[in-house]
Amino acid sequence: MLTAQQNVLLTQTGPGTGMGEVFRQYWQPLLLSRELQARGAPKPVKILGEDFVAFRDAQDRVGVIKPRCSHRGANLVLGRNEDAGLRCVYHGWQFDVAGRCIDIPTSEASIAENLKPQAALRALKVEEWCDIIWVHFGDESPDQEPPALPKLDFSALPDDHYFVSKKLQQCNWAQAVEGGIDTAHFSYLHANLQDDQRVGLMPTQGINEPAESGRYRWLIEDSVPQFTILKHDAGLVMCAARKADNEQLYWRLTQFLMPNHSMAPNSFPGDNHQGNTWVPIDDHSCWIFCYIYNPERPLTEQEVDGYASGSGIFANVDENYVPLRNRENNYLQDRDMQQHANFTGITGISEQDAAIADSQGLIADRTAELLGQTDLAIVRFRQMMFAAADAVQAGNAPHGKEHPGSYQVRSGDAMSPRSGVAIDVVTERFGELAGQNLTNF
Amino acid sequence: MLTAQQNVLLTQTGPGTGMGEVFRQYWQPLLLSRELQARGAPKPVKILGEDFVAFRDAQDRVGVIKPRCSHRGANLVLGRNEDAGLRCVYHGWQFDVAGRCIDIPTSEASIAENLKPQAALRALKVEEWCDIIWVHFGDESPDQEPPALPKLDFSALPDDHYFVSKKLQQCNWAQAVEGGIDTAHFSYLHANLQDDQRVGLMPTQGINEPAESGRYRWLIEDSVPQFTILKHDAGLVMCAARKADNEQLYWRLTQFLMPNHSMAPNSFPGDNHQGNTWVPIDDHSCWIFCYIYNPERPLTEQEVDGYASGSGIFANVDENYVPLRNRENNYLQDRDMQQHANFTGITGISEQDAAIADSQGLIADRTAELLGQTDLAIVRFRQMMFAAADAVQAGNAPHGKEHPGSYQVRSGDAMSPRSGVAIDVVTERFGELAGQNLTNF
Amino acid sequence: MLTAQQNVLLTQTGPGTGMGEVFRQYWQPLLLSRELQARGAPKPVKILGEDFVAFRDAQDRVGVIKPRCSHRGANLVLGRNEDAGLRCVYHGWQFDVAGRCIDIPTSEASIAENLKPQAALRALKVEEWCDIIWVHFGDESPDQEPPALPKLDFSALPDDHYFVSKKLQQCNWAQAVEGGIDTAHFSYLHANLQDDQRVGLMPTQGINEPAESGRYRWLIEDSVPQFTILKHDAGLVMCAARKADNEQLYWRLTQFLMPNHSMAPNSFPGDNHQGNTWVPIDDHSCWIFCYIYNPERPLTEQEVDGYASGSGIFANVDENYVPLRNRENNYLQDRDMQQHANFTGITGISEQDAAIADSQGLIADRTAELLGQTDLAIVRFRQMMFAAADAVQAGNAPHGKEHPGSYQVRSGDAMSPRSGVAIDVVTERFGELAGQNLTNF
Repeated sequence: MLTAQQNVLLTQTGPGTGMGEVFRQYWQPLLLSRELQARGAPKPVKILGEDFVAFRDAQDRVGVIKPRCSHRGANLVLGRNEDAGLRCVYHGWQFDVAGRCIDIPTSEASIAENLKPQAALRALKVEEWCDIIWVHFGDESPDQEPPALPKLDFSALPDDHYFVSKKLQQCNWAQAVEGGIDTAHFSYLHANLQDDQRVGLMPTQGINEPAESGRYRWLIEDSVPQFTILKHDAGLVMCAARKADNEQLYWRLTQFLMPNHSMAPNSFPGDNHQGNTWVPIDDHSCWIFCYIYNPERPLTEQEVDGYASGSGIFANVDENYVPLRNRENNYLQDRDMQQHANFTGITGISEQDAAIADSQGLIADRTAELLGQTDLAIVRFRQMMFAAADAVQAGNAPHGKEHPGSYQVRSGDAMSPRSGVAIDVVTERFGELAGQNLTNF
Repeated sequence: MLTAQQNVLLTQTGPGTGMGEVFRQYWQPLLLSRELQARGAPKPVKILGEDFVAFRDAQDRVGVIKPRCSHRGANLVLGRNEDAGLRCVYHGWQFDVAGRCIDIPTSEASIAENLKPQAALRALKVEEWCDIIWVHFGDESPDQEPPALPKLDFSALPDDHYFVSKKLQQCNWAQAVEGGIDTAHFSYLHANLQDDQRVGLMPTQGINEPAESGRYRWLIEDSVPQFTILKHDAGLVMCAARKADNEQLYWRLTQFLMPNHSMAPNSFPGDNHQGNTWVPIDDHSCWIFCYIYNPERPLTEQEVDGYASGSGIFANVDENYVPLRNRENNYLQDRDMQQHANFTGITGISEQDAAIADSQGLIADRTAELLGQTDLAIVRFRQMMFAAADAVQAGNAPHGKEHPGSYQVRSGDAMSPRSGVAIDVVTERFGELAGQNLTNF
Repeated sequence: MLTAQQNVLLTQTGPGTGMGEVFRQYWQPLLLSRELQARGAPKPVKILGEDFVAFRDAQDRVGVIKPRCSHRGANLVLGRNEDAGLRCVYHGWQFDVAGRCIDIPTSEASIAENLKPQAALRALKVEEWCDIIWVHFGDESPDQEPPALPKLDFSALPDDHYFVSKKLQQCNWAQAVEGGIDTAHFSYLHANLQDDQRVGLMPTQGINEPAESGRYRWLIEDSVPQFTILKHDAGLVMCAARKADNEQLYWRLTQFLMPNHSMAPNSFPGDNHQGNTWVPIDDHSCWIFCYIYNPERPLTEQEVDGYASGSGIFANVDENYVPLRNRENNYLQDRDMQQHANFTGITGISEQDAAIADSQGLIADRTAELLGQTDLAIVRFRQMMFAAADAVQAGNAPHGKEHPGSYQVRSGDAMSPRSGVAIDVVTERFGELAGQNLTNF
């Protein structure tokens, strides 16, 4: 439970807000690379409550600049994307990917040269990496070197080992993260139904089956996972242990990376791995970037097709990455399906997650909660975010910012005896990819 | 004419407002019984500016509870309606019709038992009666006995003697009531046209015809009805006398019952009788519950079909009880019809009433009125509402609250000599059903 | 560049605002005459942020009155338009075109007579002229003589010499005017494209061609027109000189008439002439009235058909005069067209103008501009508007108000030697129609 003031701090990310200043310290995914074509349509984008226009010039360089022409304030989103940059269609002033004004055709040449520096537009730092356009608000001087990108687990893999996409979430970023790092809800939100009883998402074969199928049964059977939270240089490992067959424990091990990335569980060695980043558009919506990858082999065409059309953490989206089942159409919830087939009456794991987060309101009211032991991951997430806000306010680097190399961590599932201890389980399962300087938190 | 402050007092019914506190003293219709099925879809409802979720459990009991799960604030409207109550689809916490938390599957049993009382949700008191689900905000302790339901005239009748439905009104409750108790507008709003002249709603046979058909002519011929207002234990009788043939008076006698019921005229002995209750959803919309009944015989199937498809006080509504002719489509007003067929160019008595009330604004501005003698019923209605607000603020029961048995009153039409006096006419026409402790007001 | 306070002053026109008081000193176009039929549907209208209802009675007189019935506030837009005026459909109170209450059928005759003066509704002064319904807020006494209408150039012509229409602009009036008097943008906004190079709107024949076709090339070749602003009794003449062939200058001469009319250039002697008036609906939208006329001959049927379907300054509009290519559908901007066919990817000169003005925001932010020499017309426009606001606040007549006869001025194009001086060019081109008491400003 938070105070009203803490809830505001956690959820607001616009310019000048506490958490907004935290986010502005880190690189953030802005667009999928495939959303911008060279000399193609410029795209209006909003991130952390601020409007920009993004475009790719003829040299394949991406610019993300303030959208209003410095001359008379016409919107550059209407602009013509030319070889050297974006040209305002009102009087032809032109801007390059760094926001520099490179042509002022309404003035004589000598006057224009003097005017250009004043006419420059603020530009975000931009990097493309793993099919994603990343931006950093950073220092506004175009000369300063940007910090390094966070080295997520799949960034070292060949291109065909991973697939990335995104989906719109119609609520505040923080409650969407809190759903993403909350494995406890699997016992209900994602349950199927048979004869009015919850059953697992996938068929199981009963007692003594392999963990690969048994886990879907254990998720249902034990709705009180025991949580242990570990901390490392880039964030947290959330360890949730459920009772499994034969006095064993089934562990789901989730990575949270500051300030808004998660590597999700549900993978034994050999399985595909998955992750998300929740990027605030404004305080009432966010983009969820979705990653799937296999450290050992390329994804198959069939797998990619499945993800692209909305399986698992991927939503079934339209051409603008808006989920087809969304807040406006109540996720096509089917009450008959809810009585007989699955627990929500909503089709799709991603859509079930989206629906429940949206249902908490545009911004969840955390002043009236009753948190228990299964909400420990959420409590620690908030704690780390508040510490980051304190750090930034004190002029210090927030957690993880100075350790981009420590972002290469892995999430997944593990089995242990009933006496297993989280830090040992994690270390044994992931080795160095568990996280650097791992400790209990 | 009211002051701006009085207008606010009359029209606002949210928690903590003067009139909101008045409404919270009385039972209010919330839903039609047929809107909730056992174990069917829970329904989001708003009444007096407050959100709730309504559901019917497997034992056919109706619950109306606050809609946010006490765990993490997920919306229970997404919930699964199970045998014992509504279960949150996020982590499975379950609530019964009284708002009690009856299952907390994310905690060990002993912890859960301790947590449940804290986890209870506020529930309204609920009664079903005459095909309507009634609620009372009352005291929030679930142990206290609720007050008795107001005994409306048709409540004593066999089921097949009455029919109830509802319709959405897209403006503040008070101006809709003021239209409902205003018989003066019949001379224009509901007039038909012939050769550019107003004529009655129903065909008449000219002078010396029976009152049953003559009344439609008298409504047109006399646009200055003389008003007398009587008071009784449950509210008011509004008596409007129009000049009829042969030195007679034609009386339309309307009942107003605190705080928002009306029994409408237009019935001689033997006719069907009708009534309405205006229930604030918020300050910009209300549900109008509509009643029709015959004290002496069952309604015919043909009558019920007609009402269900929108005749008389019933609107032509969609499956959500939203009128098909509404604010958004300007009631399908037809200007040619308005020049040649009826006075508004709008089809339907109910729709004509709805249009004119909506047209006064979302909340009518009563600081710029010019009230006359034909507006006396409205003046007295406001006076009684303000007195109720004063009473509640002083810690006393508002008018009618302590006399639920006095709500069995009847409305209708009567004829008298030109010298007829209202209180005598009413008493002769309705006997005990005129109202208890009837006096001039 | 303006201060935030100046920007508010320039753009807000509601009752009680500085610029609102300026506008209320002048006659303003409200509707096209063809929008109101005798005894036809009354029309809700908003001008300068105030709501009225407009109607035409059986005697063909137009009324523009406050829309709420003085009795109970029902909206007269629902009203029945009868021979003598508009009748409220609630209780039948009736109002004539001067706002006088002429029937109160809910009161006895003697009471009604006393009540009528109190029941009168505020009415604007109305004149019909050149197919347009003009209104003046003026003094509210119905007895005072209204000021004379501004005598625009085409008002003296036979009916078949001109055509008028209107179109909705979805942004503040002032930035729309600033686009209308800004000839500098022709070099880009309205350019066509050939082989990735800007070319003129109309085909040209290369060097030494007649000015009638050469002007379209000069508009593209010289994007730094030299501005001189002249002042006269009704407003300003904006003179923009571009380099033409053979050491000549090509002049575009625009008239601005207080407070919101413009006569546009692009006409040599013999050509059709054009003009606009931008009338604020509220601070986020305005009506642009469009005029085309030929001083020497009737317009041809083919010309009128073309204008009516949206050529030149006329937009392609629906039956409510809303442009088919508008803010909601991003003006059907086609990015492929923008790369290969014209500079904006938007079809239509009018639509290109609308798009760029809308793109500046609902109200353009003038606190972050970089104005240059080509923006001089805009600077002088603002200066004249601010002077008018000062005059009105000091109790004086704003510029032009007392000279309605001086509004007969003409705009158009001219050629001169490179040494040509604006005031001489204008005087030679237009003679007395240049403007009365012409001086440099």
